[in-house]
Amino acid sequence: MALKVALLGCGVVGSQVIRLMREQADDLAARVGAPLELAGVAVRRPGRRRDTDVDPALLTTDAEALVARDDVDIVVEVIGGIEPARSLILSAMKGGKSVVTANKALLAEDGATVHAAARANGADLYFEAAVAGAIPLIRPLRESLAGDRVHRVMGIVNGTTNYILDKMDSTGASFSDALEEAQALGYAEADPTADVEGFDAAAKAAILAKIAFHSRVTAADVHREGITEVTAADVAGARAMGYVIKLLAICARSDDGRSFGVRVHPAMIPRSHPLAGVREAYNAVFVEAESAGRLMFYGAGAGGAPTASAVLGDIVAVARNHLAGTRGPAESTYADLAVHPMGETVTRYHVSLDVADKPGVLARVADMFARQDVSIQTVRQEGHGDDAQLVLVTHRAGDAALSATIQGLREMDIVRDVVSVMRVEGEDIA
Amino acid sequence: MALKVALLGCGVVGSQVIRLMREQADDLAARVGAPLELAGVAVRRPGRRRDTDVDPALLTTDAEALVARDDVDIVVEVIGGIEPARSLILSAMKGGKSVVTANKALLAEDGATVHAAARANGADLYFEAAVAGAIPLIRPLRESLAGDRVHRVMGIVNGTTNYILDKMDSTGASFSDALEEAQALGYAEADPTADVEGFDAAAKAAILAKIAFHSRVTAADVHREGITEVTAADVAGARAMGYVIKLLAICARSDDGRSFGVRVHPAMIPRSHPLAGVREAYNAVFVEAESAGRLMFYGAGAGGAPTASAVLGDIVAVARNHLAGTRGPAESTYADLAVHPMGETVTRYHVSLDVADKPGVLARVADMFARQDVSIQTVRQEGHGDDAQLVLVTHRAGDAALSATIQGLREMDIVRDVVSVMRVEGEDIA
Repeated sequence: MALKVALLGCGVVGSQVIRLMREQADDLAARVGAPLELAGVAVRRPGRRRDTDVDPALLTTDAEALVARDDVDIVVEVIGGIEPARSLILSAMKGGKSVVTANKALLAEDGATVHAAARANGADLYFEAAVAGAIPLIRPLRESLAGDRVHRVMGIVNGTTNYILDKMDSTGASFSDALEEAQALGYAEADPTADVEGFDAAAKAAILAKIAFHSRVTAADVHREGITEVTAADVAGARAMGYVIKLLAICARSDDGRSFGVRVHPAMIPRSHPLAGVREAYNAVFVEAESAGRLMFYGAGAGGAPTASAVLGDIVAVARNHLAGTRGPAESTYADLAVHPMGETVTRYHVSLDVADKPGVLARVADMFARQDVSIQTVRQEGHGDDAQLVLVTHRAGDAALSATIQGLREMDIVRDVVSVMRVEGEDIA
Repeated sequence: MALKVALLGCGVVGSQVIRLMREQADDLAARVGAPLELAGVAVRRPGRRRDTDVDPALLTTDAEALVARDDVDIVVEVIGGIEPARSLILSAMKGGKSVVTANKALLAEDGATVHAAARANGADLYFEAAVAGAIPLIRPLRESLAGDRVHRVMGIVNGTTNYILDKMDSTGASFSDALEEAQALGYAEADPTADVEGFDAAAKAAILAKIAFHSRVTAADVHREGITEVTAADVAGARAMGYVIKLLAICARSDDGRSFGVRVHPAMIPRSHPLAGVREAYNAVFVEAESAGRLMFYGAGAGGAPTASAVLGDIVAVARNHLAGTRGPAESTYADLAVHPMGETVTRYHVSLDVADKPGVLARVADMFARQDVSIQTVRQEGHGDDAQLVLVTHRAGDAALSATIQGLREMDIVRDVVSVMRVEGEDIA
């Protein structure tokens, strides 16, 4: 008896799911223990040209009707966005169907509703493709590391911004030139906001933090800064110091273990750090766990076929569970840890200042750091006269204190300009 | 109702499993849905000092009796070796108990028997810790990539040999000096045979190949060469050319997809290859799949706590399955592909020859390659007179042809010595 799969969405990922279900039908049947059959494909425009052949008889614009069909066992949602994806998933689950989704926005914004519906209806919810595309990350985090205590998840989870920053680093290009190139190559969308402002990475960070710390997290809990203000000068300055700038998603337990922070922002990391070598649109995620130590997962974070690989892996898992009359691991939020605000996150700052070049300037600048209890690790003065520049790197301190220091510096008459402020990460690993 | 765990073995890994079960008891209970309780620990010498506190009342020398106890739900085997581990695992399964094991040797030598017993008795068999310690690799391969077609698995899966080769590379040390240092630091055992001769890596390669290609593989199918013959000169020569020598485990599908090869041997890889940056005793594995593309998994490949993390993850999975009355994915050998002999494997050779320096030598050497249809990519002559050395790198060719070429070279009067022969890998990725 074939298991019937309803596909919602037939874009870049959906069309690859269809192709792979067809081309790998025998393998999938052998692995599941029963054939998988495409029951129907919900699309907005049935006449549209697609990347793969789809039997026109399978296409429908009535997604609700498809999801409600009695013969459908598994619903695969690759539409993206909050609605109608959420309503369709909830309908599917109400009908006892299990769901595979790649929808990071929905899971980050309102995962609780979807997970609750899964539990209430005894449905599976698998979402490996929602974070870091083809890279197995959700399953390792929620299953392989289920016997460990995760301290930190830190990674490059957005390929578009990594492509842009990598171009800026390797060619000296400005942000806007690198963005244009990324758009021309299809790595960035016409409206790049979701990527370059960090919304995409923030959604993924929320999903990762929730799994890593067994606590509720939504996108609103994530401190988010994008890369639009990263300048060619910042990148060149970092390079000169042996660093590279990456957009990082960081989920980290506090030192006392009672809360955690979730943040997405550009940061300088040493070139010797394994994440520094992640080029182009690739993704990589570091996981630090108490017993396992440091793990890294690397691969293609986006793209039709890679994302479809993750979706297919989940379909096989859900199909096996269906045949065995069981369900995979449910949402786990038992730890119920609080998300602490960004101000309480302990970070380090790299600060570059244009200053007046007169005696006592360094003393006054240093005093501003001291007033916030921020300790300076290195300071370097470059140029003199009208071009004097101070480059400071702090020790670890609360982000609120660092931020207040910057505010204070901006108000000092001897500080002509705060040229750049960038957090420094990963020096413990490099 | 607590789930009862019987632990077989209380060495480096076992004592960490006990410690983590105690320290993380609340977290494990929350994640499983029921408390885990240690039912007993089978050891050979109950009086021996251990790395963690164990209630003496739990210790027993009668492993068979422990495994047979009615109140035991899960058996964790961390004894290692074929017997008595196999008999104990089979007894456990006969009693309907599920098994978590870190036993690579047993799975590689006689996995079929153990898997058959699991199937026959409806028992789970989980073994994440058997390959690459803490790195989630078995689960991603058999679950996350269940909807993909794996082409190649290539990695550093033995920490001891990686430590030795890394020392040789970074300090110029000889094999024996580097081995001594590794032994002094506890990275290598007093009898290092299993590691340095590649037996440990070969067992892991067999396990990985079986999962990747859904076919039967045993340790005997693995072509195995160790690192004892790698000289300081080989390492220095590789370094001079921009390469580093690593002991690789390679499981690769043939070009026609109908068979695959499994091999463990030292190989030169470009320094720009991600595996080249894997230092000290770390492990890393590359997986190339049709849709997912290239994935890399990196982390601690051995050690008590990292291995225990993998064991605990499996215990949680088995415990969840137990409560849900279900089982995880079973052995998958449906594809039934043949393992082709090493001679049919397509590789490249780096060959260094001491030759007589007279006219026509290169022509005659080149002719020896041509007779086996092996095409030369680069050739470099160094020195002259009595010290003339030819360094050749071939294009890809069947290993049998390459091997026959070397045999032919050894028999030539103008070839004074075949100084080194090393396979070259990973140039398509670097």
